[in-house]
Amino acid sequence: MGNVGGGTLDILAENGAGIAEKLGFPLEVRAVCNRRGPQKPLPQAFANALRTTNWREVVEHPEVDIVAELVGGTGVAREIVETAMANGKSVVTANKELMALAGAELWDRAASAGINLAMEASVAGGIPIHTVLREGIAGDRLTTLFGILNGTCNYILTEIETRGAEFEDVLREAQAAGYAEADPSADVDGYDARSKLAILAALAFGQRIVPTDIYTEGIRRITPTDFEYAKMLHHTIRLVCSARLTPAGLILSVRPSLVANTTILASVRGAYNAIWARGKFGADTFYYGRGAGPHPTGVAVVSDLMRVARELRSGSPERVSPFAHSSLNEYKPVPSEQHHSAYYLRFRVADRPGIIAQLATALAAENISIDAILQLPNANWRDLPFVITVEPASEGSIRKAIARMTELNFLVEPPLALPMEEGL
Amino acid sequence: MGNVGGGTLDILAENGAGIAEKLGFPLEVRAVCNRRGPQKPLPQAFANALRTTNWREVVEHPEVDIVAELVGGTGVAREIVETAMANGKSVVTANKELMALAGAELWDRAASAGINLAMEASVAGGIPIHTVLREGIAGDRLTTLFGILNGTCNYILTEIETRGAEFEDVLREAQAAGYAEADPSADVDGYDARSKLAILAALAFGQRIVPTDIYTEGIRRITPTDFEYAKMLHHTIRLVCSARLTPAGLILSVRPSLVANTTILASVRGAYNAIWARGKFGADTFYYGRGAGPHPTGVAVVSDLMRVARELRSGSPERVSPFAHSSLNEYKPVPSEQHHSAYYLRFRVADRPGIIAQLATALAAENISIDAILQLPNANWRDLPFVITVEPASEGSIRKAIARMTELNFLVEPPLALPMEEGL
Repeated sequence: MGNVGGGTLDILAENGAGIAEKLGFPLEVRAVCNRRGPQKPLPQAFANALRTTNWREVVEHPEVDIVAELVGGTGVAREIVETAMANGKSVVTANKELMALAGAELWDRAASAGINLAMEASVAGGIPIHTVLREGIAGDRLTTLFGILNGTCNYILTEIETRGAEFEDVLREAQAAGYAEADPSADVDGYDARSKLAILAALAFGQRIVPTDIYTEGIRRITPTDFEYAKMLHHTIRLVCSARLTPAGLILSVRPSLVANTTILASVRGAYNAIWARGKFGADTFYYGRGAGPHPTGVAVVSDLMRVARELRSGSPERVSPFAHSSLNEYKPVPSEQHHSAYYLRFRVADRPGIIAQLATALAAENISIDAILQLPNANWRDLPFVITVEPASEGSIRKAIARMTELNFLVEPPLALPMEEGL
Repeated sequence: MGNVGGGTLDILAENGAGIAEKLGFPLEVRAVCNRRGPQKPLPQAFANALRTTNWREVVEHPEVDIVAELVGGTGVAREIVETAMANGKSVVTANKELMALAGAELWDRAASAGINLAMEASVAGGIPIHTVLREGIAGDRLTTLFGILNGTCNYILTEIETRGAEFEDVLREAQAAGYAEADPSADVDGYDARSKLAILAALAFGQRIVPTDIYTEGIRRITPTDFEYAKMLHHTIRLVCSARLTPAGLILSVRPSLVANTTILASVRGAYNAIWARGKFGADTFYYGRGAGPHPTGVAVVSDLMRVARELRSGSPERVSPFAHSSLNEYKPVPSEQHHSAYYLRFRVADRPGIIAQLATALAAENISIDAILQLPNANWRDLPFVITVEPASEGSIRKAIARMTELNFLVEPPLALPMEEGL
């Protein structure tokens, strides 16, 4: 009973009558575990539920049919899920890390045990994207999926964009306000988004996606000036999660990217999440909502509880694993060197003649064509950033060109390379 | 086997292996009816299917488990659905008109017959909004739903907006290109959107919504000038379907409205549909995709076929009617006179002194406060439109003020009143 647990109980209590009407029967809370002891009273409706600090009392409770694992992480959470399953309980989980790491294995175990495993809450809290991918558009054959899957990063980027504030300042404010963790790495370095993309790509393409196969970059280097240059290019910057089925294999990445202002992804501001999917038949669809929060995530947990309860009542339908059902697509991640895109390259240099010539020479040596060279009206050449955009090139040749540039002693810091997403 | 039927067969044939992998078993097409006789050959995969012009041969076929009704309308389509059900077949339908009119009744009949009735394709073709509302966010308690539910209208409005073209010209082009029907009334007068809103509001609020209770206005009076004024106000114009649960009852309307450019609904352009929902717990979510087309709608039909097939295999789960499950909300539509909003009022007048004074007097007589008076820079007073925006007032008082104005003999045409949606 942490944040999401508390939100879930609120909804079960306050919307109990509505839930019972939709299901045809009520959901009852029989036991609540909080490892640190009761922090606050239970809603009146569940006053008689067992309260414990020992999770085993929940997963062994004879009157419990479904266990909601809202602990997070891959330690005790995994033990809870596995023990619950071993005891014949169905499981609802909000645990992205565990499902990204061991979802396929846990699913197989659930199938052998004849119980249900539901995980709507593990990705994009308030957006019912699992339900959409597994049922709503199940008939389509997805080819592309773009996501904004970390609300903290999107909040920080939007604040940099709208207020011209620096990353470190916005992060500090977000930490003070409780929007960002004391150790922000999982969010701002992209690892949280990577787990979520691994789960979504698994659902979308029927593969077992290994999170470490996903090329991942965080947002620490993005500055207000980058947003000014992006604006000149009619783009904005978002932490884009992308999964694309191509003839060469699966392209998987989480990285800050330029997104055209005319795309609907660019309109996602603040602590929201969004997923844009393209199918062979259904064309593009887009889903948007709160990425986190006790109540939005609680809606996902409660909706899963309702689904599982309904299925337990009527005899669980046999389901094919969402993680590894497809023999149609070979799981072949494309190495990041072979990712291909137009790029935005931002430089900070010491004032000196001949800089453009030397940078252009480094690009030419890798056969990269310059599209435009941009300098803000108020910029001067003393340690001020400027931007070169280049025509589509491989990430590998961009990295080689950057390695050449890094040898040039006028660079104040390594160039920043952001792909310009054109697939939207 | 019209447009949607053809799209559905394409997907079943081309994605057959993917569908079988997701389900664990294949879907087979046993019979295809086309009332006008075979128009084109069946996909190779279904070459052995029965072809007929007599729908009874399909709904009576002993090897058919599920009938897809893709005929449309409330005549023979209803007979097909009812006969199929009477024969113990489950039904998948794309028929918005039938479901808006008789959904609750047909659902009850399906429940008594122990068969399934699925209707994802009946609203917003490519967007799996039924699945979302009935399962994905089932745990929430929705309070507000806004939709852009007619792709033809949204296409026409976007063309007027971007090209400055007149309504009649865009409509004629859309008809020539096959985007709009020869008789465009169902689209441009809002009746198609009304049927869809009736179904969505039924799902959202658990009520049986009567389409004629939905206040409905079409888009015929919208001009390029209205978009120019909307732009001055940082808004755009969309045909907004809205359903809101208020203490006074349900507010239901389909009408062209001003939508702030900062809202995500304003970013919906061209032949797309979108739904914006707000729940008590999950806050706001947003869903976007193609509103029509053989393949997007076909994805909805195929996904429903998969769902129903899976449920037939595992024993159909008992479900509560989506149309009239709730005793928590009384079905009490608020009369349109009591709808309440800020308004955009556009006038065309003959040149004469004292016009503003007389219009302002008419508004003051109904206790309506003027917010702003706008005139485009290039406008003059000879038969050119100008705009008055007013502070929130009831639709009833706006109508009374307009009645007073209509007596003034300088009006070239009745004033156009558009609500300014602030709830987004």
